[in-house]
Amino acid sequence: MKKLLNQVETYVDDLLEGMVAAHSALRRIPGTQVLVRAAKGNKVALVSGGGSGHEPAHGGYVGSGMLDGAVAGEVFTAPTPDQILAAIQAVDSGAGVLLVIKNYTGDILNFEMAAELASAEGIQVEQVVVDDDVAVDGSTYTVGRRGIAGTVFVHKIAGAAAEAGQPLAVVKAIAERVIANVHSMGMALCPCTVPASGQPSFQLADDEIEIGIGIHGEPGTHREPLRAASEIVDTLFEHIWASAGLASGDKVAVLLNGLGATPQSELYIANRRLRALLTARNLDVHKTFVGEFMTSLEMAGFSISILKLDEELKRLLDAPANTPAWKS
Amino acid sequence: MKKLLNQVETYVDDLLEGMVAAHSALRRIPGTQVLVRAAKGNKVALVSGGGSGHEPAHGGYVGSGMLDGAVAGEVFTAPTPDQILAAIQAVDSGAGVLLVIKNYTGDILNFEMAAELASAEGIQVEQVVVDDDVAVDGSTYTVGRRGIAGTVFVHKIAGAAAEAGQPLAVVKAIAERVIANVHSMGMALCPCTVPASGQPSFQLADDEIEIGIGIHGEPGTHREPLRAASEIVDTLFEHIWASAGLASGDKVAVLLNGLGATPQSELYIANRRLRALLTARNLDVHKTFVGEFMTSLEMAGFSISILKLDEELKRLLDAPANTPAWKS
Repeated sequence: MKKLLNQVETYVDDLLEGMVAAHSALRRIPGTQVLVRAAKGNKVALVSGGGSGHEPAHGGYVGSGMLDGAVAGEVFTAPTPDQILAAIQAVDSGAGVLLVIKNYTGDILNFEMAAELASAEGIQVEQVVVDDDVAVDGSTYTVGRRGIAGTVFVHKIAGAAAEAGQPLAVVKAIAERVIANVHSMGMALCPCTVPASGQPSFQLADDEIEIGIGIHGEPGTHREPLRAASEIVDTLFEHIWASAGLASGDKVAVLLNGLGATPQSELYIANRRLRALLTARNLDVHKTFVGEFMTSLEMAGFSISILKLDEELKRLLDAPANTPAWKS
Repeated sequence: MKKLLNQVETYVDDLLEGMVAAHSALRRIPGTQVLVRAAKGNKVALVSGGGSGHEPAHGGYVGSGMLDGAVAGEVFTAPTPDQILAAIQAVDSGAGVLLVIKNYTGDILNFEMAAELASAEGIQVEQVVVDDDVAVDGSTYTVGRRGIAGTVFVHKIAGAAAEAGQPLAVVKAIAERVIANVHSMGMALCPCTVPASGQPSFQLADDEIEIGIGIHGEPGTHREPLRAASEIVDTLFEHIWASAGLASGDKVAVLLNGLGATPQSELYIANRRLRALLTARNLDVHKTFVGEFMTSLEMAGFSISILKLDEELKRLLDAPANTPAWKS
């Protein structure tokens, strides 16, 4: 295992310390793996999180216009209910808290338990579950579709609604509209290695790629021969298209997400083809985001997320945000 | 060679097309590998560039507050003088053009030739050469120190001076002050593969790292055993400290740059130690940037750049910028 780390046991702790050291607008709640804004807002608060290993998610999205708190579990492991509860308690201003959960069984159980505990304390808590990955309708870790990179659009758009002073019910409804409108799918050139295991999560031959990969080192739906980037984009796009209910003339936002070890040059090469496909279907691309937004340690590969926009979602996507990993 | 690409021959062309498709504020000069701002400024213009394979450099820094033009050569190959000349011609508003060159023999030759051709046409052209890499005092590709990730600070700070309407001589002097004040050094866990070669540029054993790596797949100064991230940071920092002329109380900006395949979690783990070292020397860290700024294809590893700030450099670093890869 060739990684930049100190000890496996301190991996998450060390990275959170490094993150807080880098970004003065972040504060870590002492004794937890929770990052919150240094300056608490007087508005509906958003909390997200999940296992570590997806950096910049989720701490990188804490800040003005996006999240108020991010809870980091161990690598690829759901955060515990007590940590999630600590986040909820820290960010609530009395206006209520929306939990943005990716659809994994462990995450849902623990976030729901924390929500119950917070409700018992009189905090108003609502939740949404992101299930944007069209690759599988169930996996080792999920009932239903998994939540992957499209989650970042939920953070951005629901975050903008909360920042604008919308009440909890409205922020939740907007988050649900984003979830209904965003569809994603990924592929991998190479697996990743969870530090505690020390071994790659699966094996791929030099001429093989994994289609429908998730973000936890789990294998995808099937393997295919390595081929031209454009053909790989075609495959992912066709799966997304089949699920997304898009129609000629729709306005969309696009996110090309590197999984951790993919150079930006390759993401841009993929985007070239993706744009051609979108144009051929007469979709109006409002904005394209290319980079690392929701990673899977040092996995090589990428995912495509396509979000159908209406006027309100477009306005909220374009609204100002100032976080370590997203500025607009 | 496992990469997301179409054909080796179209690698740069495809990535530039994908970049322009993603970022509507970029325009490609037809028939060239030059990216310029869609809206031309009425001010001193900055042009940078070099081989491709360093994405987001350099096209990702074209935009308000930073570069006006970026010239992309083939992968790890200096751009040709005619392309550089096309960039200079496109961005000059009459106020003159500053060329920001990284110190590689090929780049300097070609940028200087383009500058002479532009001067002959009556365009006022000045140049600065960035040589921030303290690892080597000469290499296969350079006389003197190489230019690496610290170059991005030159783009940002000189770009802000130009945006503020400073004349060419002042913008150049500010760029030179940044160059004098920035020192960098990198390491690699794994090599990278130039598409046209198809083979890794060097070999490293599973328990070896390369210290003093450049950004063109060239080997570094020497190999060491893989060890804790903090100890690796110690090594790089000591080399930088020995060259940087820093003193207790100095204000600095820090850039932790991933070389292409390093997950952000590992960069943050490195930043944790770096901050402890800076604090121990009583340096005042004004800002820390963590991410991929100047990459070397899919090389795993990172570099540290430390910039000593004075009041003016600090103000210009903090000034607004809006480019694909840097927003402030």
